[in-house]
Amino acid sequence: MEQRDVAVVGDAGATAGAGRAGPVALRASRAKLRPLPLDAVSLDGGSLLGAWQEVNRDATLPTCMAHVEERGNLDNLRRVVGAAQAEFRGLPFADSDVYKTLEAAGWELQHGSRPELEEFIDAATRLLAAAQEDDGYLNSWFQGVHPDQKFAQFHWGHEMYCAGHLLQAAVAVSRTTGSDDLLGVATRLADLLVRRFGEGGQDAIDGHPEIETALVELYRQTDDDSYLRLAERFVELRGRGLLGDDRFGANYFQDHAPVREATEATGHAVRQLYFAAGVTDVYLEGGDPTLLTAMEALWENMFSQKTYVTGSHGSRHRDEAFGDPYELPPDRAYAETCAAIASFHWNWRMLLATGNGRYADEMERVLYNAVASGTSVEGDRFFYSNPLQLRDGHAGDDEDMPSGRLEWYRCPCCPPNLSRLVASLNAYMATSDEDGVQLHLLSAGEVAADLPGGRAALRVSSDYPWEETVSIVVDSDHEWTLALRVPAWCDGASLTIAGDTVDTSPGADGYIRVRRAWRPGTEVGLTVPMPPRVLVAHPRVDAVRGCVAWARGPLVYCLEEHDQSPGVALEDIRVAAGAAPRAVAASGLPGVPVVLVGEGSVQRVADGVLYANGAIATEGDGSVDVTAIPYFRWANRDPAPMRVWIPAS
Amino acid sequence: MEQRDVAVVGDAGATAGAGRAGPVALRASRAKLRPLPLDAVSLDGGSLLGAWQEVNRDATLPTCMAHVEERGNLDNLRRVVGAAQAEFRGLPFADSDVYKTLEAAGWELQHGSRPELEEFIDAATRLLAAAQEDDGYLNSWFQGVHPDQKFAQFHWGHEMYCAGHLLQAAVAVSRTTGSDDLLGVATRLADLLVRRFGEGGQDAIDGHPEIETALVELYRQTDDDSYLRLAERFVELRGRGLLGDDRFGANYFQDHAPVREATEATGHAVRQLYFAAGVTDVYLEGGDPTLLTAMEALWENMFSQKTYVTGSHGSRHRDEAFGDPYELPPDRAYAETCAAIASFHWNWRMLLATGNGRYADEMERVLYNAVASGTSVEGDRFFYSNPLQLRDGHAGDDEDMPSGRLEWYRCPCCPPNLSRLVASLNAYMATSDEDGVQLHLLSAGEVAADLPGGRAALRVSSDYPWEETVSIVVDSDHEWTLALRVPAWCDGASLTIAGDTVDTSPGADGYIRVRRAWRPGTEVGLTVPMPPRVLVAHPRVDAVRGCVAWARGPLVYCLEEHDQSPGVALEDIRVAAGAAPRAVAASGLPGVPVVLVGEGSVQRVADGVLYANGAIATEGDGSVDVTAIPYFRWANRDPAPMRVWIPAS
Repeated sequence: MEQRDVAVVGDAGATAGAGRAGPVALRASRAKLRPLPLDAVSLDGGSLLGAWQEVNRDATLPTCMAHVEERGNLDNLRRVVGAAQAEFRGLPFADSDVYKTLEAAGWELQHGSRPELEEFIDAATRLLAAAQEDDGYLNSWFQGVHPDQKFAQFHWGHEMYCAGHLLQAAVAVSRTTGSDDLLGVATRLADLLVRRFGEGGQDAIDGHPEIETALVELYRQTDDDSYLRLAERFVELRGRGLLGDDRFGANYFQDHAPVREATEATGHAVRQLYFAAGVTDVYLEGGDPTLLTAMEALWENMFSQKTYVTGSHGSRHRDEAFGDPYELPPDRAYAETCAAIASFHWNWRMLLATGNGRYADEMERVLYNAVASGTSVEGDRFFYSNPLQLRDGHAGDDEDMPSGRLEWYRCPCCPPNLSRLVASLNAYMATSDEDGVQLHLLSAGEVAADLPGGRAALRVSSDYPWEETVSIVVDSDHEWTLALRVPAWCDGASLTIAGDTVDTSPGADGYIRVRRAWRPGTEVGLTVPMPPRVLVAHPRVDAVRGCVAWARGPLVYCLEEHDQSPGVALEDIRVAAGAAPRAVAASGLPGVPVVLVGEGSVQRVADGVLYANGAIATEGDGSVDVTAIPYFRWANRDPAPMRVWIPAS
Repeated sequence: MEQRDVAVVGDAGATAGAGRAGPVALRASRAKLRPLPLDAVSLDGGSLLGAWQEVNRDATLPTCMAHVEERGNLDNLRRVVGAAQAEFRGLPFADSDVYKTLEAAGWELQHGSRPELEEFIDAATRLLAAAQEDDGYLNSWFQGVHPDQKFAQFHWGHEMYCAGHLLQAAVAVSRTTGSDDLLGVATRLADLLVRRFGEGGQDAIDGHPEIETALVELYRQTDDDSYLRLAERFVELRGRGLLGDDRFGANYFQDHAPVREATEATGHAVRQLYFAAGVTDVYLEGGDPTLLTAMEALWENMFSQKTYVTGSHGSRHRDEAFGDPYELPPDRAYAETCAAIASFHWNWRMLLATGNGRYADEMERVLYNAVASGTSVEGDRFFYSNPLQLRDGHAGDDEDMPSGRLEWYRCPCCPPNLSRLVASLNAYMATSDEDGVQLHLLSAGEVAADLPGGRAALRVSSDYPWEETVSIVVDSDHEWTLALRVPAWCDGASLTIAGDTVDTSPGADGYIRVRRAWRPGTEVGLTVPMPPRVLVAHPRVDAVRGCVAWARGPLVYCLEEHDQSPGVALEDIRVAAGAAPRAVAASGLPGVPVVLVGEGSVQRVADGVLYANGAIATEGDGSVDVTAIPYFRWANRDPAPMRVWIPAS
């Protein structure tokens, strides 16, 4: 594969500045903010996020590439062209793992040539092109196992879900490399969908949303608005019962009510969040304001009643679903890694649509906690569900809720999803608008934007999220506005410019704005104080009544039994409700520079009675130190009890 | 069907006294206690349990009979003989609903001729005999839909599960009517199982236990010990991996460890409890004491870590399974009605095996709370899962957790299971041994036993569980011991004999024993004080931390929003932790003679924040009356929020 140096295919017009577009390369667009090209934003390798990109490059992505080979995903496609004889392996949507891995490889190539990635993409592209039928159809499950069932299994077939991931992979590869080979495969399949399901065609939707957001990205990349129209049509057709009844109910598929009425988060969490991202994409390019209104109402519902403190979603294992309002059990949190990734994607689109920092706050929370929890510190083991508590005595031999991260899963949707997000993570650091630059993720790195008045560049130094100071050297010589997000968790942020304290505070949208005629080398210092915080939940969150959670900066912390005093069972620890822990520079644990240490007590229960009249006596051990590590770093040692929510005495 | 007046088929030797045997008609037996014949124990129609038997007769059983016709269960069998052409309907184990309904009809016939029941049994028996193959095979799913898969789908096929319910139905019909027609069908099928899976035959077990306990009952009824040997073999073969791997893991089927090592309650709750009943049956007749030791260890584990305060089991919807230790969420309690029935059955067998009142305590708790919750006050609507909390905003249109009882279910295992238990409920009231009579359920009714010294009869008057006095008129003229169970929840039980207070207290096994030479007409008065109790859970039961549950006598109470002050949301109610409510004679609600009323407060949360630093402010409304109804009577009005565990202020 030859890398072209120039631009992107199509006209990524609303990406600010020239260069390779990243995810969501807006076109005409209702957006308030515009993404920056991939080569205009980079994360410093010394930062948590930058280092994560390197781990993804060196471990997660290679792991995914190895597994789609070893687990049969590629062989499933080879079967279609007669190049493999084995039985189909994996789940019906096994192709999607190949596509997400391709997308990850595509975004990774933003950093320049990597022969092993290019070879993987080239070989897979040739295989896909060979497997694709003349009319554009491509799906190894239906072609290879149920050829008579093509486009006949919308509720569980995942046909357009897989197609969507192919489209996104092709867009990524095209944007970073300029090669349109995979894009050709994708557009042939998308054209088939347009012919069959477009205006005047069959009324149908896929049981698993994903095609909607993918079609909009394909539209952005190709400027062919039949893809946007089809995405709009899929959005409008949802909620009209086309999927029929199912044992999990129509809510599971978000097919219970039309999009403008479906403003309670419900059903399968990943489906709900992918659909929301797709709807927001359709709003961004299509412009129907009633869609944005519906998404804002859905967001309010979801984030005020149905979101874990880590930012994750999904309270039920049975159907991987949202629960009732305030039903947020920590031990049985489903909190699928894919749902966390989907929430990040949706919030990014809402941020672009509105410019409101609450969406960037959610991106930050879910990224540093729920998404990051999905992978081991080495990047080669994964959680699918991300519980907020692991009980003593947990039977951890079940893939559904293992006691530690696994190498791979029977349903391995999460690892390649992680990889495609992390490979493109720099894209989410900052945006621009006519007025200037907005810094959303406070990571060390570099940002450049072509503004109406000329170029603006930022060099950000910080050990965020471990440290509370963010230093920015602005390299520019004209007037524009620098907007710095002050996270909602932060009280008392302060700003200096060229060493002088500036009296400012964030606006209602969460950003401190500095407008001035910049001089090259101007130093801006943002301090976001990070005293450890003691969080409580709404009283209706029954599952954590009487408990507190510790947090510092954007990070939610947790107790793992490893770090407690010898002989102390995690389940017997109580902390004082009102007392905040202190932040302590840690040395021992890889990837954990700061722990929280607070005062607690031990309350043991003497006998085995499960229920009693009045009270169950406990005996205490006096005061003990209680040590918490960042939630996302748990389960990097031998399995041990863990809890985010700590009973308060 | 002609009812014979005489005795039972086979020699129900260890049932004390002549007459029609009920469930668990012990033979040689290791039992400490012996069941009484059905016609020696009756429940007073004015008592809660007696009235329930009447509701079962008049509503529940007719509902079951109607549904196995309307829902296709009988047609599935007719298909096999060419008498129906419709597609197979229902789940693969649809036959078992027919069998459980037949068993219920059989037990109901203990009270004498009922033409509509006899016709139902006769017609079903003729149909089953016609559908049965020459070798004894009988299962409408495999015969009618997958004839090539007979005895090839042990993990999910439910073949021997269905067979077990046929055996139990045939035993019931035979015991109450003397007719052996259905027993002939059952023994032909059981003989096939013996030939195929008996000693020297194929090593196999069914994915769903049930055949074990059924084979032991068939042995008791026929004296053919090949059935007992096969039951022993199935018990011994379990836990050796014969079922292979499955997505829910081997624990789901209790196939993860051999019976003597599998002493932690795990996997599918009904499977676990049916298996435990079967193992205990094998112990009772086979006599291997290591089986009882294993069952005692399993019981300790289950009832000290994995049982709801209502006596129900199963913490997870995903696999209808036991959870980790202390994982007992009230909102997502699975608490299947069948599991509660199974616990009743298992505890009865443990009671017979040991004479220990703790098992009778569990029978009482699960019967009055978890089992009774399974049916509406009219007996014609049912819960499958029995949550201990219904949230405000619950999406209740899902069979998995409806907001109220449904007429029937896609998986309708519970209603006919309820019916067969309630139809035979009198059998569980009392037992006898060489020494005398033991009264376990303190219901109004009559008990008679043939003791070595002659006949002993008790006439029990009581409005238990609503009132705390139990009056017993003993009709006997020889010396024996009357043992009266004093429930573990009761402090300060007192006894009078012929009006004189007797200074006595219950033994370690939970029984007050009175040995004397009885005179006809002696009055015994037992008082079991029932002050309302405030229950708390073990601190590791995170899901109800900071909450209390109210109980009175054997009944757990709950708050339903209907009964609270106008305008007060159930979720905002707090009660004082230490303050007990008072019992109040209620008038308004059908089937609820006593409610509990306590003092509480209202704490509203002003805004929609889900998590906050330090505290979330609430505003109170001062003191309000809080009214609780018996848990088992909830959901007999329009759907409304409900909770057993009440947050304490």
